[in-house]
Amino acid sequence: MKIYVDFSMSASTLELLRQETMGHELLFPKNPASSVLTKPEPDPQFAAAEIAFGQPNPQAVADAQSLKWIHISTSGITRYDNPEFRDQMARRGIQVTNSAGVYYEACAVHALSFLLAQARHLPAALQMRAPSGAPEWTALRNASTTLRGETVLILGYGAIGRRLAELLAPFGVDIVAYRRKPRGDEGVQVVTEKDLAPVLAKAHHIVNILPDTPETHAFFNVARFAATRAGASFYNIGRGITVDQTALLEALRSHHIGAAWLDVTTPEPLADNHPLRQQPNCFVTPHVAGGHPDEFKALVRHFTDNFKRFLANQPLVDRVM
Amino acid sequence: MKIYVDFSMSASTLELLRQETMGHELLFPKNPASSVLTKPEPDPQFAAAEIAFGQPNPQAVADAQSLKWIHISTSGITRYDNPEFRDQMARRGIQVTNSAGVYYEACAVHALSFLLAQARHLPAALQMRAPSGAPEWTALRNASTTLRGETVLILGYGAIGRRLAELLAPFGVDIVAYRRKPRGDEGVQVVTEKDLAPVLAKAHHIVNILPDTPETHAFFNVARFAATRAGASFYNIGRGITVDQTALLEALRSHHIGAAWLDVTTPEPLADNHPLRQQPNCFVTPHVAGGHPDEFKALVRHFTDNFKRFLANQPLVDRVM
Repeated sequence: MKIYVDFSMSASTLELLRQETMGHELLFPKNPASSVLTKPEPDPQFAAAEIAFGQPNPQAVADAQSLKWIHISTSGITRYDNPEFRDQMARRGIQVTNSAGVYYEACAVHALSFLLAQARHLPAALQMRAPSGAPEWTALRNASTTLRGETVLILGYGAIGRRLAELLAPFGVDIVAYRRKPRGDEGVQVVTEKDLAPVLAKAHHIVNILPDTPETHAFFNVARFAATRAGASFYNIGRGITVDQTALLEALRSHHIGAAWLDVTTPEPLADNHPLRQQPNCFVTPHVAGGHPDEFKALVRHFTDNFKRFLANQPLVDRVM
Repeated sequence: MKIYVDFSMSASTLELLRQETMGHELLFPKNPASSVLTKPEPDPQFAAAEIAFGQPNPQAVADAQSLKWIHISTSGITRYDNPEFRDQMARRGIQVTNSAGVYYEACAVHALSFLLAQARHLPAALQMRAPSGAPEWTALRNASTTLRGETVLILGYGAIGRRLAELLAPFGVDIVAYRRKPRGDEGVQVVTEKDLAPVLAKAHHIVNILPDTPETHAFFNVARFAATRAGASFYNIGRGITVDQTALLEALRSHHIGAAWLDVTTPEPLADNHPLRQQPNCFVTPHVAGGHPDEFKALVRHFTDNFKRFLANQPLVDRVM
C-alpha cells in the first residue's frame, strides 16, 4: 500500500511508523506541516496514495483516484464534514477515520482541571497574600466549592464528554448532556435543543465540547449566554467558532458569566491586546487540552492499529464516514 | 447545658446555633477570635462551661471543672494532641471531638485541583502566547499528562486521603498510602516508615496530608526530598511544619522536585519576599483547602448534630480523645 503522511514527526516516531507499517510504502511531502492542525502544501505525489494519514487537502482527495482510506490526524474533521465530501466518500467507497481515540482522555482531564481550578478559585488563591481571618480570605474560602450538588451541562457528548462524566462521577454532581441526536445509551440525562433552556438556566458549569459544524457556529450567542444561570462558569474545549466572543465578553464584563476557561478561541492564539485577554475572569490555554506525553507516538499507534485492521478487512476504529 | 463558643460568626450562623441548641445556654467571649484557627483571650466565664466549642485554651480547660465535652473547630488538634492533655481528658472523662467531617471533602477536592493543575501545567498554559506548532507549544502539550499510570503517594490517610483516593479512582493511577499505623481497611497499598523509601523513589505525585505532631516536624527534610523520584510533584495540604522549607527550596531550585503546590506553609501567609514566593515552580494558596460555601454553618451543624448525640448519650462523631 502507498500511505501518504502529511505531518512532520521526530525520528523515533517515524521509526515507529515505519516499523508498524511493515514495509508498506510511505510517501511524505517535501515541506510537511509542523502541526497536526495546520495544512500542508499541495503535492503531486498525493495522486498515487491509497491511504492518507494527516490532514489531506479535500481538492487533492478528489483527484486521488486510488484512495481507499483517510485517517485524519485530529478529532475535529471540519474541513471534511460537509454533505459534498460525505457523498463523495460514500460514492467512492473511501473510509474516513479520525484520531478521537488519541485525544479524548487528555481533553476530559483538561476540562476537569478547568472545573476544579474554578471551583477552588486557584487563580485568585495563588495571588492572595491576606492572612487567615481577613475578610477577603474568608470570602475566598466561602466562594470555593467541592462541586457537590452542582449541575454540570456537557454540550457535545462524544468520547470526551463521556470520559468527563466518568471523572466527575465521584463528585456528587448532576450531569446533563446536550446532544443533537440522543442515542439512549448515554447513562446520564440528555437534552436536545428544545429542552436546553431550562438546563442552561440551572447549570453551574457549562462545558462546551461542540464540534465545528455549520449548526454550531456561534451556538453560544447573546441569547444563549443571557439564558444561563447568573454567575455560571463557562468552559470551551471544543472549537472557538462555536462561541460568539463578543457576547461572551459582555457576559463576563457583567459577571452574568462568572468565569470563562477557554482552550480554544478565534483566532488562536488570541492577540495579547484582545479584550478577552484583559478580562480578569477569563482564562485561556493555547489549544493544549489534547496534549499528553508521546502524543505523536500515540497518534501513529492509533493509525497503525487501524492500518492492521484495514489490511485484515476488519471494521476501523473512530470511523466518521 | 452551658456551652462556651469561642469564635465569631455571622448573625444567621448564630441563629442556626441558637436554634439547634434548643435553649441550652450559650456563653461567648467578649472578644471572640475572628477565625477558627486563632486563639481567643482567656475568659473567666469558661470555668462554668460544660461543653466547649472552638479552640479552648488548654490551661483554661484544666481549670474548668464542669467540662464534659470539647468540640474543636478545626481538623487539626495540635494544641491538644500531647500525652499530658490526653491523660487529663481520659482521667476526667472528657470527650474530645474535632471538625474533620466539615473539611475533608473540600480538602480532597483542593488537593485534586492541585494535581490536575500540575498535570495540565495550567500556570504555564495560562501564560503561553505561542501558536500551535511552535516548539514551546509542542513541549507544553507533551509535558501535560492525564495521570494515567502514574503513582500517587498520599501521606496521612485519614478522611481527606481516603476521599482523595475516591476522587482519583477513575484516573487509572496507582495509589500508595503512607500511615504510621495501618489498619488493614484502607483499600489501597499501605506502607509504613520502613517501606517508604522505594515508594518515594517511584511516586510521580507526593501528597502530604500529615498532621502536626512531634514525629511529623520536618518529616520532609533534605534526606526525604533527596529520596524522591527526579521531577516528582509535591503537594502540601496538611500542616506547614511537616516540611523543611529550606530543603524544599533547594529541591525546587535543582528541579529534583519539579513543582510544589502548598496550601500550608511556615509562617502563613509567606512574606512576599520569601524565596518560595520567588520560585517559579512553587505555587502557594493561603490555607483555603477546607473552604466551601456556608463553611461556618456546616461547622455549627456538625457541632449541633454531635450535641444531639451527646444529649442522647450516643457515640460522638469525629471523636479524637
